[in-house]
Amino acid sequence: MSGYVRTLAERAREASLILAALDGAERAALIAAMAERLDAQRDAILAANADDIARGEAAGLSAAMLDRLRLDPQRLGAIAGALREVAAQADPLDGVTRSETRANGLVIERKRVPLGLIAMIYESRPNVTADAAALCLKAGNAVLLRGGSEARASNAAIAAALHAALRERGLPVAAVSLIEDTAREHVLELLQLSDLIDLAIPRGGESLIRFVAEHARVPVIKHYKGVCHLYVDRAADLDLAVNLLVDGKASRPGVCNALETLLVHRDTAAAFVPRALAALSGRGVQVRGCERVRAFAGEGGYEVAAADDGDYAAEYLDLIIAARVVDDLDQALAHIARYGSDHTEVIATADPATADAFVRRTRSSAVMVNASSRFNDGGQLGLGAEIGISTTRLHAYGPMGVESLTIERFVVRGAGQVRHPESLER
Amino acid sequence: MSGYVRTLAERAREASLILAALDGAERAALIAAMAERLDAQRDAILAANADDIARGEAAGLSAAMLDRLRLDPQRLGAIAGALREVAAQADPLDGVTRSETRANGLVIERKRVPLGLIAMIYESRPNVTADAAALCLKAGNAVLLRGGSEARASNAAIAAALHAALRERGLPVAAVSLIEDTAREHVLELLQLSDLIDLAIPRGGESLIRFVAEHARVPVIKHYKGVCHLYVDRAADLDLAVNLLVDGKASRPGVCNALETLLVHRDTAAAFVPRALAALSGRGVQVRGCERVRAFAGEGGYEVAAADDGDYAAEYLDLIIAARVVDDLDQALAHIARYGSDHTEVIATADPATADAFVRRTRSSAVMVNASSRFNDGGQLGLGAEIGISTTRLHAYGPMGVESLTIERFVVRGAGQVRHPESLER
Repeated sequence: MSGYVRTLAERAREASLILAALDGAERAALIAAMAERLDAQRDAILAANADDIARGEAAGLSAAMLDRLRLDPQRLGAIAGALREVAAQADPLDGVTRSETRANGLVIERKRVPLGLIAMIYESRPNVTADAAALCLKAGNAVLLRGGSEARASNAAIAAALHAALRERGLPVAAVSLIEDTAREHVLELLQLSDLIDLAIPRGGESLIRFVAEHARVPVIKHYKGVCHLYVDRAADLDLAVNLLVDGKASRPGVCNALETLLVHRDTAAAFVPRALAALSGRGVQVRGCERVRAFAGEGGYEVAAADDGDYAAEYLDLIIAARVVDDLDQALAHIARYGSDHTEVIATADPATADAFVRRTRSSAVMVNASSRFNDGGQLGLGAEIGISTTRLHAYGPMGVESLTIERFVVRGAGQVRHPESLER
Repeated sequence: MSGYVRTLAERAREASLILAALDGAERAALIAAMAERLDAQRDAILAANADDIARGEAAGLSAAMLDRLRLDPQRLGAIAGALREVAAQADPLDGVTRSETRANGLVIERKRVPLGLIAMIYESRPNVTADAAALCLKAGNAVLLRGGSEARASNAAIAAALHAALRERGLPVAAVSLIEDTAREHVLELLQLSDLIDLAIPRGGESLIRFVAEHARVPVIKHYKGVCHLYVDRAADLDLAVNLLVDGKASRPGVCNALETLLVHRDTAAAFVPRALAALSGRGVQVRGCERVRAFAGEGGYEVAAADDGDYAAEYLDLIIAARVVDDLDQALAHIARYGSDHTEVIATADPATADAFVRRTRSSAVMVNASSRFNDGGQLGLGAEIGISTTRLHAYGPMGVESLTIERFVVRGAGQVRHPESLER
């Protein structure tokens, strides 16, 4: 270990104490000033991004990766706009969460405080540099950023803009610390710093996330993947169910809250499966089905490949869906328990008792009754911008907004109360 | 790895799904039945404990360790009583935590769900076997228990009583799984089971906790130690400050919320330090002080050894205290930031602005204004029984009651809403 990251983390941690002492208005003004600086330094950021793009093209990055990496005036404007929205959000540290007066007169308050220092480990999208910094600062945290090597110049240019805003307000630039040397050994060093880093959030492909989880000695909040299910109950409104299926699978297949598996109650299979195959086929979605699903394919002339265990466990992130007819709710729940990823499950049913049973007997971070899986998103659920999604059943479960970057602590206000008054006598 | 613990954990995880589906009344009745069984099987438990004690005496355990290990009818009655209290507590899974209706008509609810499977790793006190099981079950979790080898027979006898209550209610005994083979390799195996175990809570000495933190691939909530400070401000009521000092240090020095360091503002040192030395000396407390503290020792004829860095970092758990005169609040806060353990800090002051600054600028899980550090305890803070104390700034911070064994998830209720209605059109 070189100590390079430890030194950065020590400075960031010192900065976190200064951040934590700012009031909400000061933190909001800082983030708004960062948005101004992103606008003001637009040309420098776009020039740096052009360098990254040129390097990426020379290195043979895929078109999809280059698209994630690319900034233009509109995308940069959207990043600044997102920062202004974060600045305008309510202060997550404001006020007292709960308060109780005990019989002995002690007032027990719970108040949110920042986590301290948060490490973000992410891949090619340079917007994460600004978004994550803003969300961490909003909650009074310092942040240590380690982006992908392919976005090195873009990230450095964005960080320079953020630093300018910190500097002009007399705040330590270490509050937003970018690990500019993207050698992988530095990630390993970072993941050992349990005395300095309160939380690491990896964002990216499953291999990145598994690497972080495997090597971390610091707490990690993560999700590996989203294998999201739609269960069409026998009491489902079939028009509604078709809509949830199409929106869930086809509106944006590359995201983690897209549907990956359709489960259909056998009593509704004859009515629903042909409609589902028609709707999916019409949007270019390939279906991989169980034998009972495949039996319906011939009728309409659809091609349905045979699904295996790998299909049921797959996060396709593509125009492909697995489909299975199940005997009843129990079998649907057993399927989800076996193959699911604790991300998002959907039931289409008009029967409230079945809906309640589905809610109670699924473990996942979000469960939707007659609503699309695609609503599992911080903005859609009313959290504002999200810094990540957790399928770790600890601290936060589901999309994480700024509140997930805080922790409740106890503040006790007394008038000299002691626990053992008899100990005071001699 | 033998697979012995994996097999236990797989069964416990299956049982957790059944536990999670019980309603609050069923969970409460189960815990009350466990209390009955502890009473009914008292003789068998005490006989097993006598075996542990005999083995411990032969192995030369210290008197303090034997005392922690020993059960008698009164202690066993207290354990059953604690279970009845947990049974009577409010259901942490009941109701909806928050609810919001969005503009599109979606109702976004947050509801608490169990964490799943919790592993407890602890040392000699056999009461933890019953207490931890009751708290985990109360929140709908299954529990995997690994107690100390010295309490092996006692833990097995207590687990047998708990299993009888599960069995008579038709519930899987694996909901409370005891790792009876206490070989350390099984702890290592347990700590790798990140696909099965949602949380590990180590309770015991610092070396046990460091071992768990060092080897865990599962999430761990822990606290290493309690280096708790009392800061006597220049605006303190000195009678009140003496009371907080005596209660904090002398009422029960062996616990983690006892005071370990006294910090005194220099303007009040001449008035307070002699009174503090008199009060501490009168209760047999040794003082290790800075030069300014020691300068007052001669006046009253007290012996005050010179404090060094090791004293300021020490968790004495004994009738010893470190003492230092500081120039101002800033120096007190810098001392706490350097040597503290994020456990409990206390300020004695009549100045609300100073109190607020102290609250805002300390990181610790609990901060007390004019109240004793000894109140940092689940029962005293209104949480009921506690399963542990967290100084990890994640999920829970401070004492953890049953609510800390749950996590909020999202339940979305709709009427067919989709995110991209335009995707439905063909």
